[in-house]
Amino acid sequence: MNRAVLLISAPDKIGLVHEITGFIAKNNGNIINLDQHIDKDTKTFLMRVEWDLSTFKIPREKIKEEFEKVAKKHNMNFEIKFSDYIPKVAIFVSKFGHCLHDLLYRFSSGDLPGKVVAVFSNHKDFENLAKFYGIPYFYFPITKENKLEQEEKELEILKALDVDLIILARYMQILSKNFVEKYENKIINIHHSFLPAFPGAKPYHRAYKRGVKIIGATSHYVTEELDAGPIIEQDVIRVSHKDTIEDFIKKGQDLEKLVLARAVKWHLENKILVYNNKTVIFE
Amino acid sequence: MNRAVLLISAPDKIGLVHEITGFIAKNNGNIINLDQHIDKDTKTFLMRVEWDLSTFKIPREKIKEEFEKVAKKHNMNFEIKFSDYIPKVAIFVSKFGHCLHDLLYRFSSGDLPGKVVAVFSNHKDFENLAKFYGIPYFYFPITKENKLEQEEKELEILKALDVDLIILARYMQILSKNFVEKYENKIINIHHSFLPAFPGAKPYHRAYKRGVKIIGATSHYVTEELDAGPIIEQDVIRVSHKDTIEDFIKKGQDLEKLVLARAVKWHLENKILVYNNKTVIFE
Amino acid sequence: MNRAVLLISAPDKIGLVHEITGFIAKNNGNIINLDQHIDKDTKTFLMRVEWDLSTFKIPREKIKEEFEKVAKKHNMNFEIKFSDYIPKVAIFVSKFGHCLHDLLYRFSSGDLPGKVVAVFSNHKDFENLAKFYGIPYFYFPITKENKLEQEEKELEILKALDVDLIILARYMQILSKNFVEKYENKIINIHHSFLPAFPGAKPYHRAYKRGVKIIGATSHYVTEELDAGPIIEQDVIRVSHKDTIEDFIKKGQDLEKLVLARAVKWHLENKILVYNNKTVIFE
Amino acid sequence: MNRAVLLISAPDKIGLVHEITGFIAKNNGNIINLDQHIDKDTKTFLMRVEWDLSTFKIPREKIKEEFEKVAKKHNMNFEIKFSDYIPKVAIFVSKFGHCLHDLLYRFSSGDLPGKVVAVFSNHKDFENLAKFYGIPYFYFPITKENKLEQEEKELEILKALDVDLIILARYMQILSKNFVEKYENKIINIHHSFLPAFPGAKPYHRAYKRGVKIIGATSHYVTEELDAGPIIEQDVIRVSHKDTIEDFIKKGQDLEKLVLARAVKWHLENKILVYNNKTVIFE
Repeated sequence: MNRAVLLISAPDKIGLVHEITGFIAKNNGNIINLDQHIDKDTKTFLMRVEWDLSTFKIPREKIKEEFEKVAKKHNMNFEIKFSDYIPKVAIFVSKFGHCLHDLLYRFSSGDLPGKVVAVFSNHKDFENLAKFYGIPYFYFPITKENKLEQEEKELEILKALDVDLIILARYMQILSKNFVEKYENKIINIHHSFLPAFPGAKPYHRAYKRGVKIIGATSHYVTEELDAGPIIEQDVIRVSHKDTIEDFIKKGQDLEKLVLARAVKWHLENKILVYNNKTVIFE
Repeated sequence: MNRAVLLISAPDKIGLVHEITGFIAKNNGNIINLDQHIDKDTKTFLMRVEWDLSTFKIPREKIKEEFEKVAKKHNMNFEIKFSDYIPKVAIFVSKFGHCLHDLLYRFSSGDLPGKVVAVFSNHKDFENLAKFYGIPYFYFPITKENKLEQEEKELEILKALDVDLIILARYMQILSKNFVEKYENKIINIHHSFLPAFPGAKPYHRAYKRGVKIIGATSHYVTEELDAGPIIEQDVIRVSHKDTIEDFIKKGQDLEKLVLARAVKWHLENKILVYNNKTVIFE
Repeated sequence: MNRAVLLISAPDKIGLVHEITGFIAKNNGNIINLDQHIDKDTKTFLMRVEWDLSTFKIPREKIKEEFEKVAKKHNMNFEIKFSDYIPKVAIFVSKFGHCLHDLLYRFSSGDLPGKVVAVFSNHKDFENLAKFYGIPYFYFPITKENKLEQEEKELEILKALDVDLIILARYMQILSKNFVEKYENKIINIHHSFLPAFPGAKPYHRAYKRGVKIIGATSHYVTEELDAGPIIEQDVIRVSHKDTIEDFIKKGQDLEKLVLARAVKWHLENKILVYNNKTVIFE
Repeated sequence: MNRAVLLISAPDKIGLVHEITGFIAKNNGNIINLDQHIDKDTKTFLMRVEWDLSTFKIPREKIKEEFEKVAKKHNMNFEIKFSDYIPKVAIFVSKFGHCLHDLLYRFSSGDLPGKVVAVFSNHKDFENLAKFYGIPYFYFPITKENKLEQEEKELEILKALDVDLIILARYMQILSKNFVEKYENKIINIHHSFLPAFPGAKPYHRAYKRGVKIIGATSHYVTEELDAGPIIEQDVIRVSHKDTIEDFIKKGQDLEKLVLARAVKWHLENKILVYNNKTVIFE
């Protein structure tokens, strides 16, 4: 069943749900689910609605244009997505392969909806793995000197491949402002700590030193400021005094995989609305 | 802010959300949140909507009657609730006081919305505690012989006090069919296992014997069949080979308190729709 | 069964377990459990052993003196504790009563081994609650000006009551260096965040602003530096975009109770060894 | 650093730890960690001790024989293991590849200590995956008629390869009594429910039907009785009314991978002692 999804934010007022669902009902669309609430602090209306397109009277390519009229009247920001569109995904990775490996399997088994069209890396380690899945592997070694230049080449390829989502699967390079701005809310990173604790480098080492009893991982959209973008998902696992730093790292890797995979899934299922440097997850 | 809540189930068809929100919008009600989805197995429409009554044109006492018209047209089952109504609650307890104690504090501190109007027990142990909170304590010792008779007296008091919700806070007597039927979906029990594992007596002992690594607790609405009613909430905690049965019991008590309190909270906030011997929790 | 517990740290070398257990075996003590490991970073030997005193030949009052000889030979730091000793506990509280309330019930029901001999507060709110449990309530209002003076009075009472453990159950005053030093590793605080994220004031507000998906609570020994003492226990709970700051606070309170109660329990059961500004929990 | 591990169970009596650690100390072994406790119900002594072999005076191949003398004196059951031994592992799989895929990566990346020497399957689906990792793939289609015969062939190969551990990574065939007896406490299965709830077929469907709020997975040693062997590890994840059976299955797969990987890790690190149809996990 092909479905349409609308993600909407707007200044709140009486009648918005009625108006939006009117657009759907009058065009013979059956709503499958709808989730709406108000952010009280800013009086903002936030909503996700998903409906069956099989009976819908407006042809798919005209829906955006038609809904634009409703949106304008009420100052809505909106995105419209279709479940039959297959998003194109690029994965960036450095030396730790657990997330890459996990993601490739999830995409190949249909657990994640989308198609991985490229793996980028500053190392050659996972070329064979990418090959096994039949995915082009782009090797761009990065130094202080060549960084922006290499990024330019990467951006060209990303553009040529028409990539919708970039996943940083333990990619240990900081992307430039220019790069980040080109893919606003379209780059998902996994950070190996429970943000905002331990942003930046070597979080497990710092967690170990502090003597925490629980470690975490955080997936977030990348913004210019390091590890400060909208958080999508977090999870944690217990550690004890018996765990060494190596144990922290290994336990953490299981978290990283899950937390990144969930974020990617929600993004690709159009369940995330970014708002006020936070995410609304219409789970 | 006084709010109205509608909980609706109906055979699914196109236009239901639009129609229901039309009732609210046309009468000048501002929706605070709305959560709707479809049970695909049975093609049933399930929805909860909450709106601000301060601007609503229909007087509170007429809302039910007015919405009845909408409901009839579409074969809806619905309940309507108002946030300013203070539900009257009775708690039943036997010899374990941890849940009772926890609930009384939660009600008294405003964490749980409602008023405890009676504590019933087949033991005298918690009379002082009830007294501390200024709540009448009804002592009805139960034997095989006097059970139905005692229940009749309890039912009379419950009726006289106009009780809306009964909480079985580790009440170790099985209520009769007659009692249960009078309070359908209005009796919440806490069972000290992760149902459907270990229903009935001595679940911790059986869990210990089986060598499980995690124990649980389950809150559910009471139905005639023991521990088989619609599950509202469950949670778990780890145990290890070092834990004795006594440790299982103590760890479990912390779970029982939380799991029961969450169920009671959701019930009193009108977030539960019972359907098909399952609950929909509009959290 | 009365038991002795030894908590030991020492420079590691071959034969330490054998020597310590020799002290116990030769005096006819039966070990109930023993947990030992080495901190590889510092090559420190860390151990807890618990044995049955009923058959032990050395009288209780001489055990410390006798073990001192073993300890000296190997440069051990050790503590010896007896399970039949009932620790005397003081609880400090301000305006939030959930932890106090929870602790008092746990002590009164035997869940926590110890005796609460005093409740201290800078407010009068919980005088009746303390009275219900038959515990003296000391009201010391605190201002910038009188702080040290009031602390002196509190210290006198604590000394007179021979208090073994001080619990800060959401006590919103920062204790002076002088106070803290008098009770090293004997003051347990509950902080309402997942440390080291959000130390200091208003952690829930800051967590809300950052858009985290999980909130936490941390119990730790109080040291001079605010919220930087050895962490004893932490736990977390999920929050969502639908949760307001008030929801964060309420959800967090359930965590705070549990995390504080666990820390207190382990302390009173002599399961904590403080080492290198970290805790070893012999759970 | 090469280490030895002793796993011991014995009738409890005074002096056992002293005696065992004497064997280690007198032969100049440095203990790295030791974990001992008593099962009060059966008065059984249970212990794991791990020591550095680099300074140990008894040559590796004689340790078992030498310790036998100590063991006999005190009626001990024991196993001795060496950390430099690389266990040989066989994985059985049917149509679901998530666990196989996860395990192969973990073994190849060094997360799991051991060497996968064979993958067995009643389907051809994962032949390429095994090939990618350079592991022989044995295809044995199973019917009612040929089952025992095929098992015989599998057993021959397992014997020829000198396999130490068999992992059933969602292998959907029930092994015969004969097969199971040959590998007592050496076959680890993953069951996709929170045992003892929902043993046998289609646990997710039955969990869905019952309306549970949490689903689980359980790894256990395989015994003759289906899903009744000693539980090694369990874990759970929340589900909601919005989740379909397909969602249950997908969420569950993430659990299955983790719960199976943890069990395999503990087994290969010699941290499991099976006792009384339960496991003691010396984590």
